[in-house]
Amino acid sequence: MADDKFELITRRLQEVLGGDIIKAILAEGRTPKCYWGTAPTGRPHIGYFVPLTKIADFLRADVEVTVLLADVHAFLDNLKAPLELVAHRTQYYKKLLLAVFTSLGIPTSKLRFVEGSSYQLSREYSLDNYKLCTLVTEHDAKKAGAEVVKQVESPLLSGLLYPGMQALDEQYLGCDFQFGGVDQRKIFTFAELYLPRLGYAKRAHLMNPMVPGLGGGKMSSSDPNSKIDFLDPPEVVRRKIKNAFCEEGNTAENGVLAFVKAVLIPVSELRIERQQGKTGADAEEGASAIGDQTPFALEGAPDGTVFSVFRKEEYGGSLHYKSFDELEADFAAKKLHPKDLKTAVADGIIRLLDPIRAAFEQDEEWKKTEKLAYPDPNAKPEKKKKVKVYHPPPPGKGKNAKLADGAAGPAASEGQAASSAHAPDATSTTGAPEESSPAAS
Amino acid sequence: MADDKFELITRRLQEVLGGDIIKAILAEGRTPKCYWGTAPTGRPHIGYFVPLTKIADFLRADVEVTVLLADVHAFLDNLKAPLELVAHRTQYYKKLLLAVFTSLGIPTSKLRFVEGSSYQLSREYSLDNYKLCTLVTEHDAKKAGAEVVKQVESPLLSGLLYPGMQALDEQYLGCDFQFGGVDQRKIFTFAELYLPRLGYAKRAHLMNPMVPGLGGGKMSSSDPNSKIDFLDPPEVVRRKIKNAFCEEGNTAENGVLAFVKAVLIPVSELRIERQQGKTGADAEEGASAIGDQTPFALEGAPDGTVFSVFRKEEYGGSLHYKSFDELEADFAAKKLHPKDLKTAVADGIIRLLDPIRAAFEQDEEWKKTEKLAYPDPNAKPEKKKKVKVYHPPPPGKGKNAKLADGAAGPAASEGQAASSAHAPDATSTTGAPEESSPAAS
Repeated sequence: MADDKFELITRRLQEVLGGDIIKAILAEGRTPKCYWGTAPTGRPHIGYFVPLTKIADFLRADVEVTVLLADVHAFLDNLKAPLELVAHRTQYYKKLLLAVFTSLGIPTSKLRFVEGSSYQLSREYSLDNYKLCTLVTEHDAKKAGAEVVKQVESPLLSGLLYPGMQALDEQYLGCDFQFGGVDQRKIFTFAELYLPRLGYAKRAHLMNPMVPGLGGGKMSSSDPNSKIDFLDPPEVVRRKIKNAFCEEGNTAENGVLAFVKAVLIPVSELRIERQQGKTGADAEEGASAIGDQTPFALEGAPDGTVFSVFRKEEYGGSLHYKSFDELEADFAAKKLHPKDLKTAVADGIIRLLDPIRAAFEQDEEWKKTEKLAYPDPNAKPEKKKKVKVYHPPPPGKGKNAKLADGAAGPAASEGQAASSAHAPDATSTTGAPEESSPAAS
Repeated sequence: MADDKFELITRRLQEVLGGDIIKAILAEGRTPKCYWGTAPTGRPHIGYFVPLTKIADFLRADVEVTVLLADVHAFLDNLKAPLELVAHRTQYYKKLLLAVFTSLGIPTSKLRFVEGSSYQLSREYSLDNYKLCTLVTEHDAKKAGAEVVKQVESPLLSGLLYPGMQALDEQYLGCDFQFGGVDQRKIFTFAELYLPRLGYAKRAHLMNPMVPGLGGGKMSSSDPNSKIDFLDPPEVVRRKIKNAFCEEGNTAENGVLAFVKAVLIPVSELRIERQQGKTGADAEEGASAIGDQTPFALEGAPDGTVFSVFRKEEYGGSLHYKSFDELEADFAAKKLHPKDLKTAVADGIIRLLDPIRAAFEQDEEWKKTEKLAYPDPNAKPEKKKKVKVYHPPPPGKGKNAKLADGAAGPAASEGQAASSAHAPDATSTTGAPEESSPAAS
């Protein structure tokens, strides 16, 4: 039982530091506590499915998951956006993340949201932060942030503070492990080194692989049409996917393939497991799932198919894959054409988004929040200049995401940058118009 | 009237930045507000007379003076010293500073003490601090602290934060000008540059010259006997002054001469002014002064003498000076022997300390505080290791104090380092045994 849970918690991860900490908790029959953070800045795009798909595993394994909505960081990321706007965005993120889990039929009774402002400005936290600053050298702080803080000619002090704050968050959120992308590795080892020096426990760290963006460097990152929003209707999804970079035979720089691997296949597997009665810790899991809960396999596909690509008989008929490796091999061998893959991926995304959009349409409060959080940029045109604060790699720009250079493809771009607890969402660095239009500022 | 006040406020300073701000306030008949800070760490030594002598001018000119007792900084300076110990030291500093002003007959109705912890850990201050960190580059922060933060191979983050905090203090303490030693110049210009970027007013900055320590590099800075404590009895003062570095004819590296210039002559002048009825803004000034309130002139000295040196007739008789320049010239010309100067300075210091020691002896609460703040190191021997945080130049080690290299002479050593608001008192870096013996830690 404990072994099964550990397997569920750690599967598909690129790296686990301190796994023994989690094993020990599970062996005692206790509930591990996870912390994952995101800064509520720009509109979240479907790259968020990458960390959320993994968090679904945690929740299924009965882990207590704390999502830090780093509103203080979001505020600092754009001082022109007043706190009120950040509050609306925080609310929007909460609504959206909940809707995503609900749409996947993931139990959310052990999911809690905490706003950074609820403790990061307290006396205790501030004093701990100062204490940490008397122990941490500039060199160590800079090294910790090297992967996620934009390396500029004149770095700002904030970039040196964020690693320490992210470490303190582990203590103040009471987690056993922090989850993030592998681009967070140096931030995580920094926390492992310094928390004990303040007398606090060292936490485990679970890291997702980096997922390249869908743009592949071919699309302008400031193009508002380059990212797929969770609320985009089917025709918009199809258009954006059509424009995604997906070169025939090229599996290395392929955000479309990457999204299949990181999101669509895991979701298919989740659904197959559930069909087989493997519901995770909560036997009711999936009961309240919304919409079509079958895997991304076409009708008539063989048992165990996790991803199908429709193809007319004249072109060889549909393709069915039981693993990502098979799909990747076919693509590399040019047995699977980008156009067919794109259609299948667009179909999958549309199916994923359908219940989320439906939930939005039925929730008057959420709709109201959306208007306040992301006012129509055309209604109140404003200057784009803003204060840059903390700079996680823009879509595909992290050192570990060599594929999609600076572009914002429609799918899993910077899935892991978005998983940085304190880093304002990478979205904010791409200059998407939503971000640059805090109308109230 | 406004001109007289401005003259009193700015006399003997090395530099004034933003004097127009003060002039404008005086012209409107308003009361300028000053902020000066010190971190309550080790036992204060008589080097504090240097800034206090200048603050006496402010108080006489009816300026509202806020003394920041930077307890947060003191705590951070030595994490092993618990907050309780810092609280006792804060109380000790308060008692002592008040006693010094009272002994000089300086009105204290416009003097207030504020503890850093009363606002530096608040939500508002913390958020402002973070905001500032999103505007300040590492380069600017490092440059600002270059004179007062010890330059080490691996600088700590705290050293980068202190300049910003010291800037914010100006806003949070509501001052019109900050006072400090000229070694604070870069911290001050940093504040002038950045406060307006947060939407706060730019303040004026008044700077005292640097005063060399009494050691002259000849005494060990870890020698507990090298500094004159405010409570040292006459025989200890004489012994310490006897050991001070004071080379015949050498006026450049002479902490003994410097103390005469920065403290004894100003106090003499204050007393002469008062005898002449020039009492500053408060007509009652001096009425409650304790002890002998005559200038440091011998009986029978000519009118206007600000410093006398007793000498037997056989050695040429006593010397009387109406200005420091005359004294300095005689010393340079070897007409005044170090031994005679030292005796006169020791006499002066003993007279200065006498009413302070008397106040201490009569104040049971202060005596109790002293025991708690600086427990007998011999009673509870402890290891000396401590966490170094912020490093103002040790006695005479600042770039501007070329004279007394690292030694802790008995007099005005690091008078200005001690005047750094946020810098834990330089005393703490000299390893004097008081500092290394927070018995409760």
